[in-house]
Amino acid sequence: MTKTKFTLSATDGLARRGRIDMPRGAIETPAFMPVGTVGTVKAMYPEQVRDTGADILLGNTYHLMLRPGAERVASLGGLHDFMDWQRPILTDSGGFQVMSLAKLRKLDERGVTFRSHIDGSAHELTPERSIEIQLLLDSDIIMQLDECIALPAEHKEMERAMELSLRWADRSKAAFGQQPARMLFGIVQGGDDAALRARSAAGLASIGFDGYSVGGLAVGEPQEVMFRVLEDLTPEMPKEKPRYLMGVGKPDDILGAIGRGIDMFDCVHPTRAGRHGHAYTAMGVVNFKNARHKDDPRPLDANSENPNCRRFSRAYLHHLVRTEEILGAMILSQINLHYYQTLVKGARAAIEAGRFADFAAETREGWAKGDLPPV
Amino acid sequence: MTKTKFTLSATDGLARRGRIDMPRGAIETPAFMPVGTVGTVKAMYPEQVRDTGADILLGNTYHLMLRPGAERVASLGGLHDFMDWQRPILTDSGGFQVMSLAKLRKLDERGVTFRSHIDGSAHELTPERSIEIQLLLDSDIIMQLDECIALPAEHKEMERAMELSLRWADRSKAAFGQQPARMLFGIVQGGDDAALRARSAAGLASIGFDGYSVGGLAVGEPQEVMFRVLEDLTPEMPKEKPRYLMGVGKPDDILGAIGRGIDMFDCVHPTRAGRHGHAYTAMGVVNFKNARHKDDPRPLDANSENPNCRRFSRAYLHHLVRTEEILGAMILSQINLHYYQTLVKGARAAIEAGRFADFAAETREGWAKGDLPPV
Repeated sequence: MTKTKFTLSATDGLARRGRIDMPRGAIETPAFMPVGTVGTVKAMYPEQVRDTGADILLGNTYHLMLRPGAERVASLGGLHDFMDWQRPILTDSGGFQVMSLAKLRKLDERGVTFRSHIDGSAHELTPERSIEIQLLLDSDIIMQLDECIALPAEHKEMERAMELSLRWADRSKAAFGQQPARMLFGIVQGGDDAALRARSAAGLASIGFDGYSVGGLAVGEPQEVMFRVLEDLTPEMPKEKPRYLMGVGKPDDILGAIGRGIDMFDCVHPTRAGRHGHAYTAMGVVNFKNARHKDDPRPLDANSENPNCRRFSRAYLHHLVRTEEILGAMILSQINLHYYQTLVKGARAAIEAGRFADFAAETREGWAKGDLPPV
Repeated sequence: MTKTKFTLSATDGLARRGRIDMPRGAIETPAFMPVGTVGTVKAMYPEQVRDTGADILLGNTYHLMLRPGAERVASLGGLHDFMDWQRPILTDSGGFQVMSLAKLRKLDERGVTFRSHIDGSAHELTPERSIEIQLLLDSDIIMQLDECIALPAEHKEMERAMELSLRWADRSKAAFGQQPARMLFGIVQGGDDAALRARSAAGLASIGFDGYSVGGLAVGEPQEVMFRVLEDLTPEMPKEKPRYLMGVGKPDDILGAIGRGIDMFDCVHPTRAGRHGHAYTAMGVVNFKNARHKDDPRPLDANSENPNCRRFSRAYLHHLVRTEEILGAMILSQINLHYYQTLVKGARAAIEAGRFADFAAETREGWAKGDLPPV
């Protein structure tokens, strides 16, 4: 008997409001999952991440299998205890980072062999080993291994990778077996071709997964291509299961994808942007590297519910960024994760109220209006 | 009428237990002051610093006058609002960093001119300008400008610098004027020569300050030299005023100096050591770069009152240090500042109980026993 459940409580156009219930806690959807790459959401204590409103974190299988190693995490009690995050964790399969970070990759039907980008050590990732690693990490939501290719790509290449990913989906399902407290997601591939995507979705649905990810987007294509793929694809995906758009994105990408039927997101962007001095707000992005803030006594956003947006002056945040102080990365990472959570929380309420399109338009208007005029 | 007061409530041998009352809050002594170099205690939120038990922070005049600039801090409401630390702040005079960091220094009777180590811009620091800057920062405890030389040094050179510092003390007192809510400290110089130190202390006492700092120690001399200087010096210092040993030090230095009559300390060491993977504990220093912690599921110190010492495994702390994650610097900085505060808190209680020598011996025994044996 499964201990997990996805409940769809409201829809508004294609947008969906739902909840995933799991033994380690509920995940309200649409959900944004902060990325805890290598066992930490960078520059944040776990309770600070939770306080921004995050129900679930993402961990990277590739990074964790190299350091500290999946068997080591398991012997230390799993990833939740390791990083002291007791709520659900979703892990990716490792395939994406193998393609983007590892050296001397060799992919065949069986899986992919590669060398670590850190120390050159040799590793293999097969669908079975990826599941094994994610179970060793004690992940709550597990991804199948897939092959993710960059766009644009030849039709033949997109088809080949999609078909391979489907065969790996089958092997992943078999390797996962019965895990009533966890969920296994299949990953739709097929590049920017609607027919390939539909075949991928149908193939995965016939295998049967607890949720369906959309992979192979946000890999270099324009936003309009991504949105078109989603528009064509989501009607082909099972309605009663959560849909997760992997590695996306900026706030505007997230709004657009929610409006096209996506339930879950993850992205390193908010924390990475924070470490680079950028703050996401209802007024758009504020760049604290800019000297315009040097003498500005005003808070970042006096109307924010986030104390970090109100307690420090813009001049102080500029100073921290300019002097490359760690506290600057800490504050701006928190501000960005908080803004992302405010965004999906707002989307959830708007879908419930049947006014998601208005919410999206108002939110975009706020961004377009831009930052406060200089003092 | 002055709004500040130093009360000596107990002594135990040379060790003293006291309290400085100031408008922004009380400072229990012996006190350790974390260093907020350039407007932030590195890798810590201000409330986290307070929660370790810190009553007062130190700010560096040299760093702050260069970035963001003293006039800018003043126009933004002072250093307390700038960094959101509402309790007392002590500032140094800037002289020490001019000597250790700045380029093209030129020192004469009037003061010191130098070029910024950041952008080469030209600056001047005189006794009067140093006081002015510290007042612009809205500092609560202000230091006179002095000349601090490295040890070992020629007697003539130590005498010259001491005499110059005394004349600058006089000018600093005049520039400070009447500031009933603040305190002005003179700085004893004289190298490792007891007679020069005694002359410096007497000269400063005859000018009259709210407190007396000991400068020119921890500048390369062995610990025994520092302790000998303190033993000879503190009996020559006014009993009814706080005594501050500048830039010291490691826990063992602090214990030794408290036992020789010092009331206040500051040092970058705990936060810097934290950023380099070292943790200070009742069992001595634990180096998390060491691979012995790689598989160790035990917390750093199960007996600590500090949650950060109990909630994370040694394996996790090792992992964070090894992967150079910011969270590692955050946690270890907090652990070290907490340990330093635990140390001075323990010293305060021991002096009250008339058992400081026992406390110091027990504490050193704990360090000597060392870390837990490997698992």
